[in-house]
Amino acid sequence: MKNHTIIFNNPVYINETATIAGPKEGKGPLKNYYNNILENDLLKEKSYEKAEIKIHTSAIKQLLNRSNLTSKDIDCYFGGDLLDEIISSSFTMREIDGPFFGIYNACATFAEGLILASCLISGRLINRAVCSVSSHFATAERQYRNPLELGSQRTPLSQWTVTGGAAALLETSNKTNIAITYGTVGKVVDFGVTDANNMGAAMAPAALDTIMTHLGDTGRDVDYYDLIVTGDLGHAGSRLLITMAKSKGIDLTKNYNDCGVLIYNREAQKVEQGGSGPCCSGLVFCGYLYTKLKMGIYKKILLVPTGALLSKTSSLQKESIPGIAHALSIELV
Amino acid sequence: MKNHTIIFNNPVYINETATIAGPKEGKGPLKNYYNNILENDLLKEKSYEKAEIKIHTSAIKQLLNRSNLTSKDIDCYFGGDLLDEIISSSFTMREIDGPFFGIYNACATFAEGLILASCLISGRLINRAVCSVSSHFATAERQYRNPLELGSQRTPLSQWTVTGGAAALLETSNKTNIAITYGTVGKVVDFGVTDANNMGAAMAPAALDTIMTHLGDTGRDVDYYDLIVTGDLGHAGSRLLITMAKSKGIDLTKNYNDCGVLIYNREAQKVEQGGSGPCCSGLVFCGYLYTKLKMGIYKKILLVPTGALLSKTSSLQKESIPGIAHALSIELV
Repeated sequence: MKNHTIIFNNPVYINETATIAGPKEGKGPLKNYYNNILENDLLKEKSYEKAEIKIHTSAIKQLLNRSNLTSKDIDCYFGGDLLDEIISSSFTMREIDGPFFGIYNACATFAEGLILASCLISGRLINRAVCSVSSHFATAERQYRNPLELGSQRTPLSQWTVTGGAAALLETSNKTNIAITYGTVGKVVDFGVTDANNMGAAMAPAALDTIMTHLGDTGRDVDYYDLIVTGDLGHAGSRLLITMAKSKGIDLTKNYNDCGVLIYNREAQKVEQGGSGPCCSGLVFCGYLYTKLKMGIYKKILLVPTGALLSKTSSLQKESIPGIAHALSIELV
Repeated sequence: MKNHTIIFNNPVYINETATIAGPKEGKGPLKNYYNNILENDLLKEKSYEKAEIKIHTSAIKQLLNRSNLTSKDIDCYFGGDLLDEIISSSFTMREIDGPFFGIYNACATFAEGLILASCLISGRLINRAVCSVSSHFATAERQYRNPLELGSQRTPLSQWTVTGGAAALLETSNKTNIAITYGTVGKVVDFGVTDANNMGAAMAPAALDTIMTHLGDTGRDVDYYDLIVTGDLGHAGSRLLITMAKSKGIDLTKNYNDCGVLIYNREAQKVEQGGSGPCCSGLVFCGYLYTKLKMGIYKKILLVPTGALLSKTSSLQKESIPGIAHALSIELV
């Protein structure tokens, strides 16, 4: 480890991904990159929580199917989601027979799973891991803000929690040449934002901190990457990041984008600032970006999922919203 | 990795621990083994949540002090707790400058952190990690059952969530001869228990599964260990485990105990079935057991923290309570 960046000397390959997109996500600009698109987001379940669990379970099962593996072939599962006590992941693992690490860094959870799984694989402790995340617009709104039934008006700086499930298969064996080469572990950064409807602003300082740390630790320049892509800062948050980066002498105007910006058609889909949720970077990476890597269109990506570490209790107790971001260097090798 | 057990070929040493016990825990049978005992559990804060965050922060700071280290000397922090979105850990990390992995396996979180940190250290990815947990009786009651202000009567099978914070320093360098040699990663096991006041029964099947898996994977016998100690099954839950183990031909009557049983004086302290919470195994290990290892009284311990993966939403939606348990072989080397 150099400063905050873990170096994966023994290569870690992302050999397969699986994506299940919600109905709204399935109408967005990346619709051709998802394996499955749901027709409705309740899936005939009695609650949206149960629907999210079903989506999460399906994502893992689909990944195993696509890889011709069974659940017992996987050494460890790393799963997380936004629900209190990550019940989407934990309850999913009732149906998947395998060793489970539950993880939580809010919407940066997908990156956390990828880094931890890469550590275990690169350190020769395990050979094969599955990293999965899910999120659901209806469960997130009820939990963090208001239940949909209340019909609350959305604020201009709000973001739309992505409905879906995403899973990735990480292995020691090389089948795709798509490797995770570095993981920069984020620290918690709090700039004092207290508006739970403006999470882009709460997370942008953490994203900047992690990107700067990553570049410093690896000695790489912004231009090294074909794409630097944050998780879910959204339109306002990513503009804020570009401005903050500029003040530090870093030019993000050329090769930077945000999964929350990419996943929806902002005007037509009425999503205010764009997408959010752990499955925002999950779907965009496992669907769109992974396909572009396989096609060789992108060769070097810095994936920087971002998380806002609030809870409804912390919001009610008038706490500010700390942010975190982890960065993964994903490259064709 | 052999089946579900990770082998730490490069040694991982637990070189220091720190414990902060709540007032009730500080009157229990293990009171002489804690570094600090709180006089009250609100700590002049406006909410019990803020008090828990303060306790968690203090545990890490105390660990750093005791080790003559600063926060920047630590490569990675692994933290978790029971609060929704693990705000106790996340908000603690606002004050601790360092890379953070948020983890959640309910009351098995301490074991999860120790295993993950050991993987990164044994795999030569990092040199030094801190694993921390906290829990608080008042925050857990409010979140999972009823707020204390409601004055609800406690049921006979309930357990008492431990108030406190615990942290351990894991390193590549050997200062104590206390090493983590194996980590058996648990899977989610659900026997259909639906009573959120009877978590010992919900977790016992997971504990049995993990203990049997560990013994099978390592080829060790029950007698290999001076002590096999579960996290927080409590009196009823640990009796249930002994009975279930017997039916599988495993005799746990000689060298088995439970942190939830050890931490309180059941009759005098009116705790029904005993202690629970991630800090139950955290305090008992970092305080009592670690001291006994240092003194050489115990030489081989199998620590098996247990977690009940419910949330208040899952309880209200009438879901059963899945359990998980991870096992760590901690030995004088």
